[in-house]
Formats: sequence, structure tokens, C-alpha cells
Amino acid sequence: MKVLPPLPPEIALDPLLHQWLLEDLGRGDRTTDAILSGSYSAGVAELRLKQDGVVAGLPLLERVFQKLDSQAVVKLFAQEGELVCAGTTIVTIEGSLAALLMGERVALNLVMRLGGIATLTRRYVDQIADLPTQLVDTRKTTPGLRSLEKYATAVGGAQNHRFGLDDAVMIKDNHIVAAGGIAIAIQRVRQVSPFVLAIEVETEDLEQVKEAVAHGADIIMLDNMAIAQMKEAVAYIRGKNPRIKIEASGNVTLSNLRPIAETGVDFVSTSAPITQATWLDLSLRIL
Amino acid sequence: MKVLPPLPPEIALDPLLHQWLLEDLGRGDRTTDAILSGSYSAGVAELRLKQDGVVAGLPLLERVFQKLDSQAVVKLFAQEGELVCAGTTIVTIEGSLAALLMGERVALNLVMRLGGIATLTRRYVDQIADLPTQLVDTRKTTPGLRSLEKYATAVGGAQNHRFGLDDAVMIKDNHIVAAGGIAIAIQRVRQVSPFVLAIEVETEDLEQVKEAVAHGADIIMLDNMAIAQMKEAVAYIRGKNPRIKIEASGNVTLSNLRPIAETGVDFVSTSAPITQATWLDLSLRIL
Amino acid sequence: MKVLPPLPPEIALDPLLHQWLLEDLGRGDRTTDAILSGSYSAGVAELRLKQDGVVAGLPLLERVFQKLDSQAVVKLFAQEGELVCAGTTIVTIEGSLAALLMGERVALNLVMRLGGIATLTRRYVDQIADLPTQLVDTRKTTPGLRSLEKYATAVGGAQNHRFGLDDAVMIKDNHIVAAGGIAIAIQRVRQVSPFVLAIEVETEDLEQVKEAVAHGADIIMLDNMAIAQMKEAVAYIRGKNPRIKIEASGNVTLSNLRPIAETGVDFVSTSAPITQATWLDLSLRIL
Amino acid sequence: MKVLPPLPPEIALDPLLHQWLLEDLGRGDRTTDAILSGSYSAGVAELRLKQDGVVAGLPLLERVFQKLDSQAVVKLFAQEGELVCAGTTIVTIEGSLAALLMGERVALNLVMRLGGIATLTRRYVDQIADLPTQLVDTRKTTPGLRSLEKYATAVGGAQNHRFGLDDAVMIKDNHIVAAGGIAIAIQRVRQVSPFVLAIEVETEDLEQVKEAVAHGADIIMLDNMAIAQMKEAVAYIRGKNPRIKIEASGNVTLSNLRPIAETGVDFVSTSAPITQATWLDLSLRIL
Amino acid sequence: MKVLPPLPPEIALDPLLHQWLLEDLGRGDRTTDAILSGSYSAGVAELRLKQDGVVAGLPLLERVFQKLDSQAVVKLFAQEGELVCAGTTIVTIEGSLAALLMGERVALNLVMRLGGIATLTRRYVDQIADLPTQLVDTRKTTPGLRSLEKYATAVGGAQNHRFGLDDAVMIKDNHIVAAGGIAIAIQRVRQVSPFVLAIEVETEDLEQVKEAVAHGADIIMLDNMAIAQMKEAVAYIRGKNPRIKIEASGNVTLSNLRPIAETGVDFVSTSAPITQATWLDLSLRIL
Amino acid sequence: MKVLPPLPPEIALDPLLHQWLLEDLGRGDRTTDAILSGSYSAGVAELRLKQDGVVAGLPLLERVFQKLDSQAVVKLFAQEGELVCAGTTIVTIEGSLAALLMGERVALNLVMRLGGIATLTRRYVDQIADLPTQLVDTRKTTPGLRSLEKYATAVGGAQNHRFGLDDAVMIKDNHIVAAGGIAIAIQRVRQVSPFVLAIEVETEDLEQVKEAVAHGADIIMLDNMAIAQMKEAVAYIRGKNPRIKIEASGNVTLSNLRPIAETGVDFVSTSAPITQATWLDLSLRIL
Repeated sequence: MKVLPPLPPEIALDPLLHQWLLEDLGRGDRTTDAILSGSYSAGVAELRLKQDGVVAGLPLLERVFQKLDSQAVVKLFAQEGELVCAGTTIVTIEGSLAALLMGERVALNLVMRLGGIATLTRRYVDQIADLPTQLVDTRKTTPGLRSLEKYATAVGGAQNHRFGLDDAVMIKDNHIVAAGGIAIAIQRVRQVSPFVLAIEVETEDLEQVKEAVAHGADIIMLDNMAIAQMKEAVAYIRGKNPRIKIEASGNVTLSNLRPIAETGVDFVSTSAPITQATWLDLSLRIL
Repeated sequence: MKVLPPLPPEIALDPLLHQWLLEDLGRGDRTTDAILSGSYSAGVAELRLKQDGVVAGLPLLERVFQKLDSQAVVKLFAQEGELVCAGTTIVTIEGSLAALLMGERVALNLVMRLGGIATLTRRYVDQIADLPTQLVDTRKTTPGLRSLEKYATAVGGAQNHRFGLDDAVMIKDNHIVAAGGIAIAIQRVRQVSPFVLAIEVETEDLEQVKEAVAHGADIIMLDNMAIAQMKEAVAYIRGKNPRIKIEASGNVTLSNLRPIAETGVDFVSTSAPITQATWLDLSLRIL
Repeated sequence: MKVLPPLPPEIALDPLLHQWLLEDLGRGDRTTDAILSGSYSAGVAELRLKQDGVVAGLPLLERVFQKLDSQAVVKLFAQEGELVCAGTTIVTIEGSLAALLMGERVALNLVMRLGGIATLTRRYVDQIADLPTQLVDTRKTTPGLRSLEKYATAVGGAQNHRFGLDDAVMIKDNHIVAAGGIAIAIQRVRQVSPFVLAIEVETEDLEQVKEAVAHGADIIMLDNMAIAQMKEAVAYIRGKNPRIKIEASGNVTLSNLRPIAETGVDFVSTSAPITQATWLDLSLRIL
Repeated sequence: MKVLPPLPPEIALDPLLHQWLLEDLGRGDRTTDAILSGSYSAGVAELRLKQDGVVAGLPLLERVFQKLDSQAVVKLFAQEGELVCAGTTIVTIEGSLAALLMGERVALNLVMRLGGIATLTRRYVDQIADLPTQLVDTRKTTPGLRSLEKYATAVGGAQNHRFGLDDAVMIKDNHIVAAGGIAIAIQRVRQVSPFVLAIEVETEDLEQVKEAVAHGADIIMLDNMAIAQMKEAVAYIRGKNPRIKIEASGNVTLSNLRPIAETGVDFVSTSAPITQATWLDLSLRIL
Repeated sequence: MKVLPPLPPEIALDPLLHQWLLEDLGRGDRTTDAILSGSYSAGVAELRLKQDGVVAGLPLLERVFQKLDSQAVVKLFAQEGELVCAGTTIVTIEGSLAALLMGERVALNLVMRLGGIATLTRRYVDQIADLPTQLVDTRKTTPGLRSLEKYATAVGGAQNHRFGLDDAVMIKDNHIVAAGGIAIAIQRVRQVSPFVLAIEVETEDLEQVKEAVAHGADIIMLDNMAIAQMKEAVAYIRGKNPRIKIEASGNVTLSNLRPIAETGVDFVSTSAPITQATWLDLSLRIL
Repeated sequence: MKVLPPLPPEIALDPLLHQWLLEDLGRGDRTTDAILSGSYSAGVAELRLKQDGVVAGLPLLERVFQKLDSQAVVKLFAQEGELVCAGTTIVTIEGSLAALLMGERVALNLVMRLGGIATLTRRYVDQIADLPTQLVDTRKTTPGLRSLEKYATAVGGAQNHRFGLDDAVMIKDNHIVAAGGIAIAIQRVRQVSPFVLAIEVETEDLEQVKEAVAHGADIIMLDNMAIAQMKEAVAYIRGKNPRIKIEASGNVTLSNLRPIAETGVDFVSTSAPITQATWLDLSLRIL
């Protein structure tokens, strides 16, 4: 089972959860406060899928309710990444009724958004499950949620691409123009970037592919190429250096994903599982 | 033209933009830094729609680039809320090439997400444009983005519902059960909530509607009722007190929105423009 | 018993307590550190009233000491909102002597300030205890302490008015002038504000009252009117729509509060319980 | 003229102002936004005293409005610390109407609270203006406002005592008991506290005074002593070492302040100018 | 045993530890995550000195690992300030392997830096251990680490000088010039600074020493004086007032420290134990 | 000329500078405030080297003074990375005297620390300047200063290694043991880490080198090997795949650096330029 970002939650996740709870609570849940204040009521809530989907984000939901009631007991009946049918109860939460009512919206918004992404990712991944090619995501993510949305694509079965502008070098067309060519661009990067960073070069034709190979790119992206051109590029690169990773990118859809993968590229990157995902429909019922 | 949330941007927006820029930049844009460092290059970028859509979020894009280059000149060729055709250039940005390259992803992610919401909202709103009924949003919003996503529904033509649990009282089924009835629930709220807050009661049948009217609800939500039942409820409420606002809610779609609105309710609330929206496709080209 | 703002304390209160403790501790309690460092001493402290007053803020005091010593045992001998006589011990705290010495000032400053407000509020509320009219507070609160000071007025027996500029609309004279009249002002608010927000209109004479009624104000404030004029306004509004809430405001004192309330208004708002309150005198003795 | 705390405002003051503005604005000024949005209006506001008082906090008011409108022009017609008569206009602000409406409450709350403190401080200071003794404040300050409230006592004519537990050592009765006597307490402090810190000892009788003198206290506080006893203590200390500073403390009022000062102590400390201050009544009128 | 800064760690230390852990972890420990994720492994780590040195910072190390694994058991085999030989195991940590791997670098960086400072401080202090003169540090500390670096000098045996510009007044040459002389400078400080703050005057010759004595300086710094001149200054000051503290400063080295101390000054201040310290070599081995 | 970390300073640097200025200023510069308050004085400061060294951090110094006086004019007479002789004036600052006095310590602490690192780095780099091998730093950096200390090693002529645990995978001995071998460790990393991350394997003997090569390591670290063994490893790796980067590590000193580099490794990593650096001696004189 895939786990949450490899960071201690107290340090990395809780500040976000606090921010999100305050966004919803504002100066406090006036309704729940008025109805319950002065007396403790226990409650049980049940989270059910209203459509088939791949579950993602349950550890977040768990932590939301534990923030609001440290005694809350969250029981999971599905695993992260599991494809679950509509109607299934995937979580029950026992805790104070106040905590259930105050945490419901934030917890569900997270699980619905991440589940939607995992579900759509799975549909893409399933297209190429028998091929060695892997699906990868992009930096088109909702501001503030990158780690979690990329976590959801991983839960759905994709690999992660860069998390930011700092964990790999990606030389794009504008960089090439600004530097005055692929050769000089790579050279400049070698001089000042941390030497451990991989250098990826975005190429638009075979000429650029050759130049990138010649100057030692670690990863070559074939951007928006036709299938035939991709095949040619893959053959060329494999012939020169089998360790160069090859990524295809550009207007990937559920229908063209497989042909692209069949060109033999290592990775196909697409933002679709994030930008085209709708929310996974869930309901939380308090019993 | 609708404007951004009514808060000074230095105080309310900038902390979020900083957080989002750091999310993308991490320890810095290694590529741009290596390619450009030590020399200033000017650049011009052009933002174009790749599909028809309603534009939203341009003031955010503007501020992102001005954060990165206080001299940047952002020219807008479309207004917030304008329906623009694919292929149209809606913004140009002149500034340092470094700023263009470093700000691109965050700025676009915002405009694509908000534009997607505004576009879908408009489709809903268009269904009932000739009726007095208004579309309203819900609290199903991406954590951390509520103000902006609700801004986008407003840009798209909807009205905003509650921004949080504190700016109106909403007595739901669980509250009614916990209190022991609508009457006692409303009474408790009256005692301790700020008196300016409206009291909305969620009702599931005519019995509850009558009880809510009898005890002075300001807003009555008809939750998941059949069309005929809604009509009956509307007639009852209008007969008792024409100032009570009536909201319909539950499984609203593009096809059932109009019949629901035709029951005469004041508002139809739905999360669809946010949870079902895909991103508006845009491209930023650096010239 | 009234409770603290309906927000999880870890999220909402603790950041403030940390800020306040650091304000007092600076780089640390040099005296206590030098005297005790290297050895643990237990202590018991006793909080006593030095004048009669209404107690408020004990949960804050409790949390301050528990922050500094998670083992501290705080026993309360009075309830929030209870009128207690001078000389009474209302709290004992058993814990590390270091925690008692380091937390004393912040804890007492909170309880003294809030107790002062609750005590003065009670004096106002007592004037009209037999009338249906309720006392309400205003936004004249110490910056940074609004939630807590409004909590104290509630403990003292008042109702809360707006907590900020966002949880109700209040159309004041300047807004009326800027809009060009009450009618257009209300109309503009209806168009862009969240529809759940109540609309209050500040009126200075009967003419304005009539206009506000005519255009659907939810709450009408009678600002600085003479008693006779208020009576007339109340009669007019009740005749037109018994659900409109009526608030009187302006130069309210202990002596004119009752006559104002006797005009039949629903609410009398005044900043006096906050701006005129002196601190409730308390002493914490370490035994 | 006394100035604000000696810290760069961008670093020290602005984070507080942002926090306070957000406290009042919440998710935004719904009224002003609705009335004005889409069009710029200029406005002029005039700040007038409604009672005689000593002015304090004008630089804060200035900065609040400049945060909200960087073009705002704030003209001051009174100086910090000036005693001004009721009815006098002390400030005019020209700027955007939106900024005036959004900043009004926070700005006034600050100036009213600080003016109230400065005014009451002045009344105390005036009692002993012809004596060499100085009035000093204490750590009984509103949490979050210590720097500003102590600034206000300075504006009113007092001297400041400790700002926190770290900028001087104060050995109180509990410390003496915990250490096992004044001698050992002072010795421990000497060992581990920064050597630049003054050591003040709180004494309750002449015995303790002698012990404190004998062991090198820099400042001796005479706590709650009778006038005669204080005179004796002052004489004793002056005879032993004229450089030891002497502070009197405990239940200081406007009527006993002068006799206490006449005992010849250097300082009389009291929390009254802060804990007994009511707010200075001011009104901001937008023209 | 000297303890950490006298502040509750949850409030003062943890925010720093979080910042430092995030600095190292970034978006997470990719290696450990990949190797261990999905399964818990326990581990034991052993911290050993690779050179002789004075140990400092163990409580920080302890807290780092407890942040990452609340069940971690940290056993200390050396005390803060103890001089330990190369090869000695000073700490063992039992906890989750993930926590050991993720916390290692931050914990060690702290203990190596602070140990280096404590070790060099001890070498200085040892030069004058038999004299009444004490070594004191300065404000030349690594930005962000002042409290901890000054803690390390204290662990090494030094006294602390000012922690910042606010806990004592230090009148330097530029202040004297700006004020127009020592007399006027002291007088201005007396007027506006909190009266508890000690006033130190930096002097360059006997003339200035005399002026400082005459106007009541509490501490006199002899800055960069020759040994003979210092002796003369000490004699002069002692003759006038034995309670004035005398500090020598300027280009202190291991070889001239003792002669300076033998002039009879109370304190010799030097930044060398911090600015000249190299890191104490340690290794953490996971067994 | 090398520039500061590639992040917008308002977002990345200023929060740190604010933290550091507050660390030094505390509640304000009491001395400067008392001496100057109420009157503006201009001043000129001159920064001079007191020993030969490589300059680093001047942009930081510039920003510190501009924070405190936006009108300050900072003139640089040396470039980042320039080796400058003792006695040379490298910067002059014209601005308010208050800003010069308040900013001096923080600015100098930064420039002295970073200059010390750049200077020592240069000494190492000079040993191998004629060889293709490059010096690289490590993660042994002062907590909170990693970006800046690594910036200083780059200014001194080194290359940067990983900035954190997230921008490359480094499989160390403990990881190998935990995984059960190099092969399985690499395989696990490939499955879950972002595919762009380079995989470095730490090896202790030729056996491990061969295994790392066989399983596709991108970078191989030769940890603490003898010179002969390193040569053998280099030959082996070059023979198998010339694109694998080779790093030598372990107990690097000024005297063994060159022989290590001469083995033909691409990189030699060492913490010495950071952990062994003393501060570059500088003085700021206000004229």
C-alpha cells in the first residue's frame, strides 16, 4: 500500500490541515456550537461511495477527525488504491458528534478530490498495464495541493514526475532559445546546478533529439511528436545509449495513450488524471 | 465586473501566493537559474485559450508575475467572466524572462482551475437565465481554495452560499436529531449565536417545512424533494411568509436544474460547477 | 454554561497562547531559570478574587498552565459567568513551580481582562433582565482579542453582534451616500453578497426607517434616536413586518439603557461593557 | 516626541496589523465590497476627540490606512502625548473610500485604547510631576499588546519597567522561598543569568531590605509597605549605597501616589494606568 | 548541569526544529521512503565522538528523534558540558529505523556545531579557571542560532553577555559621537529606556573611563586597551565605585586571555569560541 | 558571478532576514532608540576585511540594510567570490544612522560566516584547479542556513551536492541492509520515487561497486576507500559505463584531496569547507 508523503505529519501535514479547517470553520461552527454546547454527544459516521472508484486520502480523513477528537476511532474497510463499488461503506468514525459535524466537510473534500484523481489515473494506467511503459504526472496541480494530488496519482498507479522546479532540470524550448542551443544550455546547467540533478531536454524533432543525446541528456522528452516520429526517436536513442530515459508528452488522451506507449517510450506524461478528474462521489452519514 | 475577494491583497492573497510559488519553486528554479543567471533577459508571454471558456482569475495571474518582477507589464484582453473563443489571446505579459519562466506554472494552474469552474458555472446559469431563481454554490471546494473557487462561481454567474460554518446557521438533519426537533434547535441557536446570523433549516418533507416556518426560519432548504413536493412546499411557504428564502438542493444536474428552478424556489444550490469542472485549457507561450 | 469559541483549541487558541507566552517570556524567565534550574519543585497556586465580580476566562487559564506543564491539575471552584464575592478562591493549580511562575502573568492578564468585561456586562444586562430586549456588543474590541472579548460579553449575559465585516451586511450612512440611497445600496448588496447574509440598515430618522422597511432590510438599526422617535419607529416597523429585527444604538449608558429597551426594540447595542471595563482584581498566590 | 517601539515596522508591526485587520475583515468587508466594487471613490475622514484626553497611537492609525491604500494621505494635527480638548480634529485621512471604511474600526480601536491609557497615565504622572520620583508600569498588559500599551504609558509620561521575564531579574517571595533565602537566590542568578541583567529583589520588611542590600541587589522593591516603613527603608538603603534604585509597589491609587513618592523612592510602579483605563472616546467621520 | 533556554520547548524550540527538519527533508526522504515504506523496522543508533570534546546539545538531539518517533528511547551516557574522549559512545537511540535515518543529519549538525563551540569555550575558560574573572560571549553568532550558540558557550563554562539589542544598553563610540558625549548619551538613555536596563559604556581611554564613572555607568567596557592602561582603569574604577562591573574586550586570543584577566577586570568578552570553533566530529552508526 | 539562491527574495529570503533581525533586535535597539529617537541622522559605514579572504554574502548585507532603510545606498567594491586582501574596503553603506547601527550585527554575522566558508572552499578548490575533478559539499550545514552555506561553497568554487533528502536518492549502507541488498534497494526506489531522481549508491568495496553498476546506479560513491582501491573502482566503472558519475568521499583534507582527485573520480565530496571554516574577519566602521 502506498503511503502519504514521506514527511512527519506533525510537521508537514498538520499545518495544512489546520489552515483548511480554519478555512471552513472561520470563527467556529455556529450551528453545532449552539445545538450541542454544554453537553457531550457521541456519534458514529459512515462513509460510503456513491459511485465506483479508487479510494485515496483515507489517512487524511483519519487525521482530520483525530485533530478534532483525539479519542475518535476511525476504522478503514478499504485500502488506499483499492477499486471499490458504489454503495460500499469504506470508513466508519466513532467520536464526539461535534467533531463529526465540524470535520465532515474538510475530510470529505479531501477524499473526494483525491479519489477522483486516483480513479481517473487508474483508467489511464489500465490502458497500458501490460506494457513496460509507465504513466507519469505533471506540475499541473491545484496550488497548495501538489504533494497530495501527486500522491493520488501514485495511489492510482502512476509514477511521479518532478515535484517542483528544483528536483530535476528540464530544459524547454524557451531555455534552449535563451541559451542559444541545447549544447550550451546543458553546459550551463552542468556548471551551476547540483550535480545530482538529472537533466531532461524537451525535444520537438529528431534533430533536437540527436543534439540532446550528443550532449549527455539523462532524459529526453519527445514533445507532441507523431507516432512514427516517436518510434524513430526511440530507436535512435536506444541505439546510442540504452540508459537514457525517454518520455513522451503532449495531448495524451485515453484513446491515444496506448499507441504512444507502444512506441517503446519509458514514460508517458499527462496532466489529464488531475486536470480532467471530477470528484469521487461520497457521502458521510451520521447514524 | 466581479472583483477578487474584498480583502487587501498584501494581507490576504500574498501569503497564499507565496506558499504556492514556494510549492513549485522548492529551493529554486534550477534550470532557469543555470540558463540565465548573471544576465537579464526580457521576454514577452502570451496567454491563449485552447478551448472556448469563461475567463476567471486574471488578477491572480497578474499578481503572480508582479511578485516575481515588480516591473512586469500585464495587459488584459479579456474581462473576468467574459466568454472567450478558443485561440484568443487574453493576456500578454512583458517582464524578465526569469519571472515568466518561474511564474508560469502557478499562474496557469490558477487561471485554468478557476476558468474551468467559471465555464461550467456559466453552463448551469444559462439554463435558468430567464428565471428569477439563482444558482448558488456549496462548501464542496478544494481545501485552501474556497475563497477563490467561490469567486470563480460568482464570476460564472452564480450567487455564493455560506463561506464557512460561521457566517450563517444551517440546521441539518443531524442537528435536528441531536436537539430533539426543529423547534428546540432554532431556540438554542437564537440563544447563543450572533443575532445577525440567518437561520437556515434543511427539510425533507412538508411536515418539516411547516415546523421550520412556524419557528421562524429565515431560509428553508428543500433537500432532495420531488418536483411536485417542492411546488407544494413553495406554495405553503409563500402563503405563510413571502420573505422566507427558499433553497432547493440535492443531485442537481444540467438537465434537472430548470424544472427545479421552475418550482419557484429562490435558489438552487449545487456543488457541480466546482466538483464536476475540468480545467480550462490554456497555453502560455513565451515569444 | 457558556463555552469558549467553537473552534478546536489546538488550532485556534494555542497559536494565540504561544504568541502571548512568548511576549511575556521573551528569551526565557531568567529568574525562575536561575533559581530552579536543575531541580524540579512542585507547587500549588490559588487564584482568589479581590473584588466581587463575574468570572470569565477560566478555560484559558487552565490551558495556559497545561501548556507549561502537561501534568498540571487545575481545579475550578467557580463557573464561567458566576458572580463571585471578593475573597473567594476560584481556582487552584497544582503543577511544577516553574510552570506556575512562568504562566502566572499571562493567565491572570486574560482572566482579569475578561472578568472585568463580564462583570460590567452583567451590570448592564441586569438593568433589563425582566424585559425581552437583549444587550448586544459591537466591534469596538481590543485588536487581537475580539473572539475572547465577545466571549466575555456572552458570559456576562449579552448577545453577540457581528464578529467582523463579513458575517453580516451593515449599511451605514457612508454606504448610503456612496450608493446614492438605501434602495440602491440594498440592491447592490443583494447582487454580490452571499445570499445568506442578513442586511442591516443604519437609520437616523423615520424617513430612512421607512425606506429600509420598503426595500427589505432584515435588521434596522435606530441610531442615536430620541426615545419618542424610537417608539414611533418601532411601531411603524412592527406594523409593517413583525419579523424585522430592531436594534437601538448610540451613547448607551447604565442609566438610559432601560428606557431605550422599553421602547420595544429587540436589541440595544453598546461598546461600553468592553470599552468602559476595568480589570477584575485577582491575585494568584503560590503556596 | 516619544516614538513607537524601536523596531522596523515592516518586521515588527505589520504582522500584528495584518492579524488585526484580518480579525475584523474576516473573509472581506461584504458591505463596502458590494456598494463600491467596480468603481473607485475617494474620501476624506476626520478623527475627532469626543472627550479631553492625551493622544497616543497616531502612527499606528497612519500605518493601518497606508496598508489599505498606499496613496492615502494622513495629516496629523496633534502630537503623540499632547493633551487635546474634546471636539478637536486630530487627524484627517484622504484616500480611497474603501480603505477608509475597511480600516476605520481597527485604527480607532488602537487609538482609543492607547489614548485611554496615555490619558490615565498622565493623571497619575501629574500628581508627582514636581517630585524626582517617576511612575513606572508593570507586566499587567493585554495579551498581544504589551509593547503598544507600554508605549502608551511612556507617551503619557511614565517610565517603562520590564517588558518581559527576560530583560531583568526580579526575585519575588516565591523565588526566595524556593531558593532558601535572598542570599542564595542572588548567588544563583549571578551564576547563570546574563551578567548585564539587573537584579531586583522584592522585599516585604526591613529585614529583607537589609539582606538585599547586603548581597548586592541593583534594585530593591518595597512591596506593600506602610509609608513610615518605606521612609525607613529608603533611609537605610541610601545610607548603604546611593546607587541602588528603589521602587515602591502595591495598591497605588491617585490619592496615595504622592505620599508614596514623597518617601523618596525613585520609582512607583502601578498597573492602574493600564488596568483601570477606559477607552478615549473618538469618532471618525467620513466627509 | 546547565539546561536549555528557559522556555517551554513546544513554544520556543519546536518551531525551529520543524523548520530545520523541513530544510533537510524537503518534500520527504525519498530513499528511506522507498526502501522502508509499507513496513516498520526498528533500529538502534549509537552516537560516538571521533575526537575529544565537550558535549553540548544532547537535549536537542533527543527532541529531534522524539519528534520523528514519539516512542523513541534516547539514552544519554554523557552530560552536557562533560569533556569526553574520542571513541566514547555518548548516546544511543532506539526507535523506528525511518526516524533514525530521517533525523540523523539535523540532530548531528546541531550537536556537532554546539559541541565545537562548547569545546573551544572550555579551552578559553581553562586559561583563567583559577581567577575570579569570567569569560563572556558576544553577539557574533550564526543568524537563527543565537540562543543555542550562547547556550553552548554557557555549557562550555562562559557567562552570557547581551542576547540582543534590547536586554541591556551598550553605548558605543558611534552613539557617543551621535549624542555629543558620554554624559548626554547616558542622560538620554535614562529618560527613555526601561529603568531596569543596565547601562554599559564602551571606553577607549582613561578619559572616557572617568566620564563613564562620573555619569553613573553600570558597566564599563575597556575596549582594545593595552594591559597597563587596563590596570590603571581598573584601579581607578574600583577606587570610585566597587560595584561597577568592568569588561575587557578586543582581539582576545588563547594566549593573551590570561594577562588580560590578571588586570582584575570582572569579565573578558570574546567572539572566538563561536567564530573560531570548528565542528566537533561525531558519528552516528545505525546498528 | 554566482548569484543567490534562485528564488524571489521577497518570498524566500525576507522571512529569514526578518527572523534574524528580530533575534538580534528583540523588543528593539534600546541604545540607538534612546540616543537618536526624535531626530534623523545620516551616516556612512565602511566594511573592511581584516584578513585576506574570498568575499561572499554581499547581496545579503545589501538587503539587510535596505530592509531597515529603503533609501540606503550600498556600494560594492568587490564581487562575490573575489579574493580580497586584508585592509580593503569592500562595501560602503550610506543611510540612516539608526539603520546602520541596527543592521550591523546581522549583516556582518552573515558576511563573516559565508566569507569564511567561501575562503576555505577556495583553498580546497585550488588544490585541484587543474584537474577535471570537482569539489562538492555535503548536508553537514548549520541548521537554517543550508541554502546560504551551500551558496557560499559555490561562490568559493565548489559544486553543490544534494540540498536535501528529496532531490536525489542516496542509498547508504543502512538502506542496503534494510532492503536486503543493493539490487532490491534500487528496484524499490525505481518503483516509488519520482523517476527523474538520480540514484546514488554508497559503496565500500569493489564488490558493491560492481553490484551498483550492474543494477543501474546513476552515481556511485566510493566511501572511505584507499587510493588504490579507488583507482580500481574508477577503471571498472569507466569500462562498464562512462556515463556513471563517480564520487569519492570520507575524511578529505587539504593534503589528501589531490591524490584522491587524481584517481579520476568526477567529484570529491567533503564537509570541511563548512565544518572547518572559521569566520572571515571583517569590521564595519561608521564614519
